Amino acid sequence: MFDLMRTAVIRKEHFNAAHRLYNPAWSDQENDRVFGKCNNPNYHGHNYELLVKLTGKTDPETGYVFDMKRLSDIIKDEVIEPFDHRNLNEDVPEFQSLNPTAENIAMIIWRKLRDRIDPDYDLKITLYETERNIVEYPAE
Amino acid sequence: MFDLMRTAVIRKEHFNAAHRLYNPAWSDQENDRVFGKCNNPNYHGHNYELLVKLTGKTDPETGYVFDMKRLSDIIKDEVIEPFDHRNLNEDVPEFQSLNPTAENIAMIIWRKLRDRIDPDYDLKITLYETERNIVEYPAE
Amino acid sequence: MFDLMRTAVIRKEHFNAAHRLYNPAWSDQENDRVFGKCNNPNYHGHNYELLVKLTGKTDPETGYVFDMKRLSDIIKDEVIEPFDHRNLNEDVPEFQSLNPTAENIAMIIWRKLRDRIDPDYDLKITLYETERNIVEYPAE
Amino acid sequence: MFDLMRTAVIRKEHFNAAHRLYNPAWSDQENDRVFGKCNNPNYHGHNYELLVKLTGKTDPETGYVFDMKRLSDIIKDEVIEPFDHRNLNEDVPEFQSLNPTAENIAMIIWRKLRDRIDPDYDLKITLYETERNIVEYPAE
Amino acid sequence: MFDLMRTAVIRKEHFNAAHRLYNPAWSDQENDRVFGKCNNPNYHGHNYELLVKLTGKTDPETGYVFDMKRLSDIIKDEVIEPFDHRNLNEDVPEFQSLNPTAENIAMIIWRKLRDRIDPDYDLKITLYETERNIVEYPAE
Amino acid sequence: MFDLMRTAVIRKEHFNAAHRLYNPAWSDQENDRVFGKCNNPNYHGHNYELLVKLTGKTDPETGYVFDMKRLSDIIKDEVIEPFDHRNLNEDVPEFQSLNPTAENIAMIIWRKLRDRIDPDYDLKITLYETERNIVEYPAE
Repeated sequence: MFDLMRTAVIRKEHFNAAHRLYNPAWSDQENDRVFGKCNNPNYHGHNYELLVKLTGKTDPETGYVFDMKRLSDIIKDEVIEPFDHRNLNEDVPEFQSLNPTAENIAMIIWRKLRDRIDPDYDLKITLYETERNIVEYPAE
Repeated sequence: MFDLMRTAVIRKEHFNAAHRLYNPAWSDQENDRVFGKCNNPNYHGHNYELLVKLTGKTDPETGYVFDMKRLSDIIKDEVIEPFDHRNLNEDVPEFQSLNPTAENIAMIIWRKLRDRIDPDYDLKITLYETERNIVEYPAE
Repeated sequence: MFDLMRTAVIRKEHFNAAHRLYNPAWSDQENDRVFGKCNNPNYHGHNYELLVKLTGKTDPETGYVFDMKRLSDIIKDEVIEPFDHRNLNEDVPEFQSLNPTAENIAMIIWRKLRDRIDPDYDLKITLYETERNIVEYPAE
Repeated sequence: MFDLMRTAVIRKEHFNAAHRLYNPAWSDQENDRVFGKCNNPNYHGHNYELLVKLTGKTDPETGYVFDMKRLSDIIKDEVIEPFDHRNLNEDVPEFQSLNPTAENIAMIIWRKLRDRIDPDYDLKITLYETERNIVEYPAE
Repeated sequence: MFDLMRTAVIRKEHFNAAHRLYNPAWSDQENDRVFGKCNNPNYHGHNYELLVKLTGKTDPETGYVFDMKRLSDIIKDEVIEPFDHRNLNEDVPEFQSLNPTAENIAMIIWRKLRDRIDPDYDLKITLYETERNIVEYPAE
Repeated sequence: MFDLMRTAVIRKEHFNAAHRLYNPAWSDQENDRVFGKCNNPNYHGHNYELLVKLTGKTDPETGYVFDMKRLSDIIKDEVIEPFDHRNLNEDVPEFQSLNPTAENIAMIIWRKLRDRIDPDYDLKITLYETERNIVEYPAE
């Protein structure tokens, strides 16, 4: 019966990016009130730490839930290559009309990876914007 | 359908405090047997690392689940101000008659924050007493 | 009603070990294709970080879910003593016929500890093979 | 004789900023060749971790080399306030004509703090641009 | 000529303790002004992280500068056993008349270890009172 | 005058390897007495964290002491490629007749990199065998 339990594997990657938080439907004053210094029009930036968690069954032939080298390659393809050393607002199409908060970045990463990972696996994203501000999507 | 999934945000804070573990209903020998060196009557102390996790919906206007600056302010108000650089047993009313184990500290923090956070949000506390002893309340 | 919620305690320990990934039913080429440099016949090794999580009720007499000193002793007995500074493939009976992937190591640790921990407690293992490759068993 | 030995105190702070590396005297091609993706004209960003080390004598009255609260306030004044959540190239006067490499950021921080710290103290800056790229100024 | 260069080995240990900063020669007001919340008469506490660095020659027979197991045992003897889970002001003789600032704790640890380590080795102490307040003795 | 001060840049890389400590000139008993469980003939292993520090002058044209991408490439060439996922005793020529202690591994890495780095730069290696056992070569 033990063998029926599912196992999760987690891969950690990182990227560095600039961003700015603001809502174009609001006045400057309202943006300043809600987003404070995160609303700097010249941008600021972060070292984002990304954890991607896949939950599934361990393959008895390999002892793997998922090949971590392949998972790392998919993350590099879908996230690191398009996001790393970029301005999320200016350079990343998904944030042209979506505020690049940590919550929204995690959700976009989830959608991009969901398309590449077999639906038999559960997928969960944890994103560290700083050591003290962390987001999980979806929440457990 | 993706948009219906809930998101969690986590804020990390810390405080330094002294404490002593003991049960006043027991003999000194029984306290020593159960709590060992944690029962030193002159106290010892820790750098506590605190993670506060709120689970809710991302507001489409802000891209936030909860304003992390406001969450940090609430934690400072309810936990850091009354606990930091204090003796938990002597200076904190909640532990006058409750043993300040990591389990009980996490539970008290949860109760104090639960009163300040809208019930639409799930609330979970993770408390690191040391890098090697960690408590979660409530458990998932 | 708050008191009915369960609490989790987590103890962190570590061990250093050598291992090699391969499937004896496969050709060398197939092993190389699937396991890459992890298939080095002379072994490689890791500093494994182990988190053991027990979920249960806080005892009102002690304020403990489980005595962390006792949990640490059980982990030392069942995991650190037999695994630390060993070759998992050569020195550890459980991996004589089981590939010592992080998934399988976590599962074996779970089984060994499950026999020593009262079934009233839920048990979960998190194993860091490196800072970037992490496994959870069972998955939540 | 032991008492004559000097002691160092180190304070850790952090700031988040956007930057771009380029040399205006060079062609775009030359900037791309030397700075690669760090030359993105739309900027990228980092969570900078800053260590400020002062070496001096321990005051026998206080047991302090330097009041760490006062050191933290000076760093906040000179570094965190003007650099945090800013675009170093656009918002910080010192980098109007100086490339904001980690080396130059550390040097500028040193100069700003050197003016505020009594010359009896040696001053050294360590700056983490990422966990893997670190600069010390001056080198020991 | 390469072989003539000296090598350093560093051992990391930790202890948890309570302390209070104050100068008995001063008024309460003066103690509050200088030490702030660190002057709480009921004590507060820390998880101290201790790095002990020995610099010497690598022994060609063993490849060791110093047996790290023996270094760990000496540190446990001289520092962990007398300091861990103690009140530094109340329980540790060296701080009966010496303010237990991080600077003074590092200096006392240095003196205690200096007596146990062959003078051919240079000895240096690094003490983390928190992740953000660090002391080195002697300074390089 | 400030401009004359030298600056250090540090690059962090890691590798995973198996090793065994023993001296072939000694009896098994003597090897066991000196190296304890590190003498396991079937090997054990570690996640080694490597810091490579170069000290030199900041180039006013680039703002760099040394191109960190080029430093990373040299480290990959000389250390990661030949050491990662290897058995140091069996697979790495330098340790055929040299005990792969952390001290000796750091010294070998220093020699390999010294040949590749312009002598105008000072070179220093810091190697973490575990989080608690660290070596520096040469010592400052």
